[in-house]
Amino acid sequence: MRDALTPKGRATRDRIVAGAAEVLREQGVAFTTLDDVRGRTGTSKSQLFHYFPGGKDELLLAVARFEAGRVLEDQQPYLGRLDSWEAWASWRDVVVERYELQGDHCPLGALFLQVGRDRPGSRAIVVELMRRWQEHLARGVRALQTGGLVAADLDAERTAAALLAGVQGGVAILMATGDSAHLRAALDTGIEHLRRAAVNPPSREPTSCVPGTPPP
Amino acid sequence: MRDALTPKGRATRDRIVAGAAEVLREQGVAFTTLDDVRGRTGTSKSQLFHYFPGGKDELLLAVARFEAGRVLEDQQPYLGRLDSWEAWASWRDVVVERYELQGDHCPLGALFLQVGRDRPGSRAIVVELMRRWQEHLARGVRALQTGGLVAADLDAERTAAALLAGVQGGVAILMATGDSAHLRAALDTGIEHLRRAAVNPPSREPTSCVPGTPPP
Repeated sequence: MRDALTPKGRATRDRIVAGAAEVLREQGVAFTTLDDVRGRTGTSKSQLFHYFPGGKDELLLAVARFEAGRVLEDQQPYLGRLDSWEAWASWRDVVVERYELQGDHCPLGALFLQVGRDRPGSRAIVVELMRRWQEHLARGVRALQTGGLVAADLDAERTAAALLAGVQGGVAILMATGDSAHLRAALDTGIEHLRRAAVNPPSREPTSCVPGTPPP
Repeated sequence: MRDALTPKGRATRDRIVAGAAEVLREQGVAFTTLDDVRGRTGTSKSQLFHYFPGGKDELLLAVARFEAGRVLEDQQPYLGRLDSWEAWASWRDVVVERYELQGDHCPLGALFLQVGRDRPGSRAIVVELMRRWQEHLARGVRALQTGGLVAADLDAERTAAALLAGVQGGVAILMATGDSAHLRAALDTGIEHLRRAAVNPPSREPTSCVPGTPPP
């Protein structure tokens, strides 16, 4: 259905989703009605039904997708350009600042709590967010490798997965305890891990010398 | 009130909590009544009220504390004795296996969802669990340092915090996506980080040689 929209229809739908995200952030998922969303976005009942025939749950899922996109946008431009140590350091700062500001209020988590995090629609959004996030990080590791800053034999995908896990866990602990020490530790240790991979001596390949033969 | 219990009273209370944890795991928090708990543990209404005057919520918090203890117990004996690379590897395997088996069902998370994760009682349990978990890991890093396996200048506390964040995030992603790759990556990269700290050359202390003076 989403693909069938005209450019204008898509723009309207996007506007409703952005407006709904705003209201939901302000009022909380549990206290927001479709009427609130209509009021904020100047949308009629039939219009809302046209774009979200599945009702509130479909709208909430669309907002969750929007909020998931925002998670990555908030880390730009650094996340998309992790090709120097400076960029990694700036990215680290942005992530810490974003989640310290957010505190224990996670718009995406609140939406999933309402829609049901086990629903296929919710799962798909999380899977996609994790995939894209990790892809950015892996691309960053490979950029360091291309630039000769990190040893080529480091597994970029696994390093990115570990870093992503550390960020997720750090944020979860921050939300549960109010302390960002774990998030900072995960980021700093992850970047330090990359840096150590840089200063490592090149892998010890067996020399071509045969004992007794003089080197070429 | 808990401190005022006699040893026998405490044993009875512990038995109720363990029995309640069993029923809750089997039936789910939302579908378990106090009558179910009484039935399983052979407890009268007045007995239950005696030990949990706060009612169901107080019992659920006690079960949450019990389940939190179980999280650490399930990682023993390795978590308590991380003094060799073999112990770290075994611990890693136990953690992966435990959470792969658990899949997307987290007894502790389900309890917090019911009791309210923002309640001071819930928070205290999470904070305490994270603190003890991290303490085990930091002690393990220090044991490696004492054994000369890891450089002494590695920040044990920060390394432990990062590793804990990685495990938490890895488990969260496993629960959300069904894929344990991130948990494995976090553990493997974390342990690799420790190993790299081992093979580092000793810190370059300034030699005592003065230019022009022959070495002693």
